[in-house]
Amino acid sequence: MTSAVDLPLDLSALSFSVGGETLVQRTVHSSGVRILTESMPGVRSATLGFWVPVGSRDEQAHHAAAAGSLGSTHFLEHLLFKGTHSRSALDIAISFDAVGGEHNAMTAKEFTCYYAKVRDSDLSMATGVIADMVTGSVIDSAEFDTERTVILEELAMAEDDPADVASERLCGAVLGDHPLGRPIGGDSSTITGATREGVWQHYREQYQPSNLVVAAAGAVDHDTLVSEVVEALEHASRHWPEWSMSRVATPAARRDQTPAAITRGADYIEVERPGGQINLMLGVPGLIAGDPLRFAMSILNIVVGGGMSSRLFQEIREKRGLAYSTYSFASAYSDAGLFGLYAGCSPEKAGVVATVLRDEFSRLAQDGITDDELRRALGQLAGSSALALEDSETRMGRLARSDLGTGVFYDLDHTLECVAAVTSAEVQSLAQELASRPLSAVVVGDLNASSAGRNVRRALEDAL
Amino acid sequence: MTSAVDLPLDLSALSFSVGGETLVQRTVHSSGVRILTESMPGVRSATLGFWVPVGSRDEQAHHAAAAGSLGSTHFLEHLLFKGTHSRSALDIAISFDAVGGEHNAMTAKEFTCYYAKVRDSDLSMATGVIADMVTGSVIDSAEFDTERTVILEELAMAEDDPADVASERLCGAVLGDHPLGRPIGGDSSTITGATREGVWQHYREQYQPSNLVVAAAGAVDHDTLVSEVVEALEHASRHWPEWSMSRVATPAARRDQTPAAITRGADYIEVERPGGQINLMLGVPGLIAGDPLRFAMSILNIVVGGGMSSRLFQEIREKRGLAYSTYSFASAYSDAGLFGLYAGCSPEKAGVVATVLRDEFSRLAQDGITDDELRRALGQLAGSSALALEDSETRMGRLARSDLGTGVFYDLDHTLECVAAVTSAEVQSLAQELASRPLSAVVVGDLNASSAGRNVRRALEDAL
Repeated sequence: MTSAVDLPLDLSALSFSVGGETLVQRTVHSSGVRILTESMPGVRSATLGFWVPVGSRDEQAHHAAAAGSLGSTHFLEHLLFKGTHSRSALDIAISFDAVGGEHNAMTAKEFTCYYAKVRDSDLSMATGVIADMVTGSVIDSAEFDTERTVILEELAMAEDDPADVASERLCGAVLGDHPLGRPIGGDSSTITGATREGVWQHYREQYQPSNLVVAAAGAVDHDTLVSEVVEALEHASRHWPEWSMSRVATPAARRDQTPAAITRGADYIEVERPGGQINLMLGVPGLIAGDPLRFAMSILNIVVGGGMSSRLFQEIREKRGLAYSTYSFASAYSDAGLFGLYAGCSPEKAGVVATVLRDEFSRLAQDGITDDELRRALGQLAGSSALALEDSETRMGRLARSDLGTGVFYDLDHTLECVAAVTSAEVQSLAQELASRPLSAVVVGDLNASSAGRNVRRALEDAL
Repeated sequence: MTSAVDLPLDLSALSFSVGGETLVQRTVHSSGVRILTESMPGVRSATLGFWVPVGSRDEQAHHAAAAGSLGSTHFLEHLLFKGTHSRSALDIAISFDAVGGEHNAMTAKEFTCYYAKVRDSDLSMATGVIADMVTGSVIDSAEFDTERTVILEELAMAEDDPADVASERLCGAVLGDHPLGRPIGGDSSTITGATREGVWQHYREQYQPSNLVVAAAGAVDHDTLVSEVVEALEHASRHWPEWSMSRVATPAARRDQTPAAITRGADYIEVERPGGQINLMLGVPGLIAGDPLRFAMSILNIVVGGGMSSRLFQEIREKRGLAYSTYSFASAYSDAGLFGLYAGCSPEKAGVVATVLRDEFSRLAQDGITDDELRRALGQLAGSSALALEDSETRMGRLARSDLGTGVFYDLDHTLECVAAVTSAEVQSLAQELASRPLSAVVVGDLNASSAGRNVRRALEDAL
């Protein structure tokens, strides 16, 4: 079951060694459950995650009471903390608090993940509790109604954060009707309309052994984790027969990795709200996660807005003092992506800042990047990745995303080889491709102050 | 220079060993500079910080153009990134970006810190660049004016964050005229009025060898760091003679660790602003950093609002669905502190949430905590501290704070011994003491919606 293989690792192989020591291992259980571990020598803690490839994009925009309606994946994630056949919500909270562990979950557009970071001696406990949450939740009706109000508060809190609002709206503007363009949490009307039965059905349909990936990194022994996971899941079959580990299934197919057709949802969105700053975002459709140009995109993103020496930071903040916060970002999903630029500034500067964002984007396509910028970006990626991989959480996430995503595992050395092979011509060509795509802009703030809205519109009218 | 000593370590001793290996070392250079390191076996990166015991509390509330006027410490922190005699702002940014390091600074109420986290091979570079920033900045007039606008944007961004606003206002309400009650960044009028000469003078007065603490943790060799720091600082004396390492000085005295008299600034503050949520904070004067009861305070804070099993989380979120975010917090400074409770909720729930916050605070004083809660809180502290100390940044900060603060270094085992000695009677007695102190409340949001302001006032009127 354990053999050294070449990199990048096709995850249909089972494990591989680094320096003679087997550090990454993968087991596909006959039930369809996949278990991946990465051992980190010398580390005394571990991060464990249970991943299901179900996210907001998999929801259906039909009646809010139906199974998998908008926001129900995130709603379900909350509900799994509210109690199982053998544990109350308080029991679950105490399990991790009593050992000082970090315990949380995240719902994304293409997956849901329940995770914990604990000391090595608490890993078995974490495995048992998370397995129970994922497979044994009861979703009590009264708890359902209480949690609905918590989620409505969470949505209200996000709505009070102007940068958050800009980001959500940009996603919809760029990706249009594509399901990835929707906000992860639904909205107050879909959450208000959601029913216990609809969310319960979503749970029973999606949380299946063939969908489950368990990943752990740090102080973890692969074989011990495999047997503990299998035992904990078997336990769940008392209440949910599909979880019997003696049933045989194949892992669910990965998502299609072909770029979808994207039709822009809006070229320009204004969100009028009081506040001292204007939050401004520009974006275009980006690359999919498996795009061979993703390494060039990493370079491009760093050069434009990925650090204090980046073009946006230097031009907008250092030279001209127009904003405190400015950056670029690149999100990549299985069949769509998004590349964007952000700055937050006072209303009287909004027109100028919009002009600079627009110009930096088009300058990149016209002039490309310098050899110095290319070399620095490579160094930045090498260093920041090495630092990030000191944390078991980063490694755990890399394992699971590889398995749920493209099915190919890249270790750091191989990733850096791919990045080192990127040329400045490739980056410029990518920038030209991005600049040719439909641009969207979102502006959030007090748009009448200093004619901010009008000035931004004027600055961008030829570009949109 | 290296000897094993008992714990807790009085930092006037020079170093100590753990398990036969010297892991923490401290050198007091004849110039007054203190250099502390903690070696972490097996780690391939390091975090380095240059600390100066100057914070917003040390500023003077006189004319904005004068040295050390309000907000000038934070202003100065920004300016040190803007160029030295031998490095431009871009050079500084590139130094760290090119190696993928994290590089930032923080201005707090009692200190300023410039830090970087880098791979082991980049530590010498980081030492040189940060030393140059701290001792060789030119503070160019044009850069000064540009950076002023960046800071005004930073203040505007914070002002758009309602929880941030509540927190700043609570500090002033609880601590009144005490300098610790002021916001760290000043305000738009003090920043607008600040002059290059005033900030320059603040720099020259405060950034002196006798004030400097350099701390590093991770993959660091003590003797190498000491010689590199001394060499880099000596270099600065070409432009600033005080930095000659051949001058002899004693380290500046630590701040007085005696509780100051506190007069409440306000019992109740309303900040009217549009938004979907009401942000509510209650607070009282807390403990000073060196208070023997600080271990009991850690327990108290965890039990009330320090995790998913805490009383606030359980009562406000889990049982009643009143809020998404709720917690308690305890800040401790040399001569004052603050203990507070927070929740963000919809306007129609604001009165009820205020009542629950008030009741949980008084219930703690009346009934104390259970043995179960005490035991769990101890476990939580032990686990979360162990996890936090896996990061070199946590260890670097612990070294410097010990030296700048009480002068006593506690390692984790000793801290946990102190926490384990806390009794539930001590926690209740502390809760009674806190409950007897003048309570302040701050409420930020759309106060007319659902009569939120009136309902909060009613809920709290007997308590304030």
